[in-house]
Amino acid sequence: MKEVAVIGAGMTRFGELWNKSIKDIFVEAALKAIKDAGVDHIDSMYVGSMSSGLFVGQEHLGAVMADYLGMNPIPATRVESACASGGVSFRQAYFEVASGQSEIVLAGGVEKMTDGADVTDALATAADQEYEVYQGITFPGLYAMITNAHMHQYKTKREQLAAVAVKNHRNGSKNPNAQFRSEITIDQVLRSSLVADPLRLLDCSPVSDGGAAVILCSMEIAKKFTDTPIRVSGSVQTSDTIALHSRSSLTTLKAVSTAAEKIYKMTNLKPQDIDFAEVHDCFSIAEIVVSEDLGFFDKGRGGSAVEEGSTSLETGKIPINTSGGLKSKGHPVGATGIAQIIELYEQLQGKAGKRQVKNAHVGLAQNMGGSGASCVINILEAI
Amino acid sequence: MKEVAVIGAGMTRFGELWNKSIKDIFVEAALKAIKDAGVDHIDSMYVGSMSSGLFVGQEHLGAVMADYLGMNPIPATRVESACASGGVSFRQAYFEVASGQSEIVLAGGVEKMTDGADVTDALATAADQEYEVYQGITFPGLYAMITNAHMHQYKTKREQLAAVAVKNHRNGSKNPNAQFRSEITIDQVLRSSLVADPLRLLDCSPVSDGGAAVILCSMEIAKKFTDTPIRVSGSVQTSDTIALHSRSSLTTLKAVSTAAEKIYKMTNLKPQDIDFAEVHDCFSIAEIVVSEDLGFFDKGRGGSAVEEGSTSLETGKIPINTSGGLKSKGHPVGATGIAQIIELYEQLQGKAGKRQVKNAHVGLAQNMGGSGASCVINILEAI
Repeated sequence: MKEVAVIGAGMTRFGELWNKSIKDIFVEAALKAIKDAGVDHIDSMYVGSMSSGLFVGQEHLGAVMADYLGMNPIPATRVESACASGGVSFRQAYFEVASGQSEIVLAGGVEKMTDGADVTDALATAADQEYEVYQGITFPGLYAMITNAHMHQYKTKREQLAAVAVKNHRNGSKNPNAQFRSEITIDQVLRSSLVADPLRLLDCSPVSDGGAAVILCSMEIAKKFTDTPIRVSGSVQTSDTIALHSRSSLTTLKAVSTAAEKIYKMTNLKPQDIDFAEVHDCFSIAEIVVSEDLGFFDKGRGGSAVEEGSTSLETGKIPINTSGGLKSKGHPVGATGIAQIIELYEQLQGKAGKRQVKNAHVGLAQNMGGSGASCVINILEAI
Repeated sequence: MKEVAVIGAGMTRFGELWNKSIKDIFVEAALKAIKDAGVDHIDSMYVGSMSSGLFVGQEHLGAVMADYLGMNPIPATRVESACASGGVSFRQAYFEVASGQSEIVLAGGVEKMTDGADVTDALATAADQEYEVYQGITFPGLYAMITNAHMHQYKTKREQLAAVAVKNHRNGSKNPNAQFRSEITIDQVLRSSLVADPLRLLDCSPVSDGGAAVILCSMEIAKKFTDTPIRVSGSVQTSDTIALHSRSSLTTLKAVSTAAEKIYKMTNLKPQDIDFAEVHDCFSIAEIVVSEDLGFFDKGRGGSAVEEGSTSLETGKIPINTSGGLKSKGHPVGATGIAQIIELYEQLQGKAGKRQVKNAHVGLAQNMGGSGASCVINILEAI
């Protein structure tokens, strides 16, 4: 396997992009990435998207985007793993370059969620249609069950959940591409509308439109394009039961802990070697559980860790979601995994502006689908 | 790159499988393939599916199927390229094994189309939503335009189109997994209901449920499992404009001719070296155009070739769609590309029963999405 580098990145602002179609959004992100990388062609491309059929009535996204990007006749493949579609897109591109099959590959992700589709219904297709959705469960409901179990088992407090959202909005206020760039308070979170007890509106990531893309190539040729290629040190994908009721525990996401174990082995790194991380905070509880399952904190300590500032940009031993995370940056589901990679790329190049993590050498991105039935972890390093 | 072999295959019967869910269908096919191969594990799996969200309200198919197949925590990736989703699934699995990333990979495809969704609407998401579908065009309409152009330019006759359906039903009558196992006559095709002038009901592939799966591994270890591994000699994927109106010609599918050129170069084979082929006959005209674009016949000669029996199982110099093709075997869109591979696998092993092509050493499978905006060609050989 060849060493692989990220040499360019581009994304749209995340938010309600009513004057842009799904094509406009993807092409904007992809052209920015191509320009940033300085490449004059790509050999292949991946498009991560969860449910463009249900959201905007358009499948066949690989072909659609290759066409509108002016890239025919290259192979263009749409991959889907619910909210982990972006992470999977990156991983496929990584292996395509690592294997020597292609030289320069674009990994992108896109979702257009605000065009009138029934968003909660469309997102519910990431859960078990027969055994969960049919009973009326939605994603806030599934994560609320995880929250209640975690609060019961580990005495995680309501205020600790709120602290995740407050931190991520503080980070997002410094990100020009974030959907919400306003800071919020613990009190505002606690007083926001109840969505699925105990989760409130400000515990939940928003509905968003957005696109993101990165360019990968072998480290060998990366140096032709940039002095600061960012190395992809490892990529792991796992699966777990689709339905919550099939799991032995509600307070651990096994797809995440298994993927973490595998990627630390693959990269010969330990949790303490990670300088900062982007994790999948679709709901505040998710960041807490994932930060434990990645080994950053002991099981059950995720809530107090965020409360004590251990994950903050300013004081944290492991800053988490410096981009603002899904909560503040926005969560156009198919684009999220790639946007996480872009945050790693900018931080590792020292170009994250007001969000810059000091001494950022190793970054980890964790992206997951549904209630954790799929998970992708990628680790990038400055060289 | 390592040499790759197919060592097992399994599929459901194609048809209206009202008593089976999408999970039942995929798992049945996958278990048959695993049993046929005799493997005790798989390292990774791909699920090709076009629009499970619109058809049955279930996305996240990789994770769903890994779970129901009892394969957690392996990586499980859903890929989509409209009706070429199965071909893309096979190609991704092929490269995953060829690169040495994984040892044993399952490539599957599935679609459940008869559960009440608006099928024509769902299929239309493979076309350009903004410029084609919004104007009211459907797939029979798009292929009718191609038919009219071909009839105008090359004097292709209505009876020649009918001959495709008649031949494919004759082949399908010998396939126990085919949806339609009845022979039809030219006259029946010509008298069937008009769908989109000049295409009639019996020119169109049906709406189907079905699943298909194959097992791939490196040739090195293939010999542990079987005495007759089938070699994957090459795999190519291409893209073309999503909308028909953007193309310079309506009578050539450029994604197909480009892919053909690339795969003959990759495998060092010529059209004359191919002993038989499965091609994407979603409509009768498609088989005619594709048989020309693959180089089996001169441009414009596809219609007379089928009429003269050049593509028949019994007398053809290049038997096409010995399985019955999409027309008679059925077309559960995500499964079709894998089912084509299964026909190659059975023919090359000499296990195709009454459909057996004599001296079948090299088989080609051509699968495409939409009106040809994506195309995958795979070549398999007996060793």
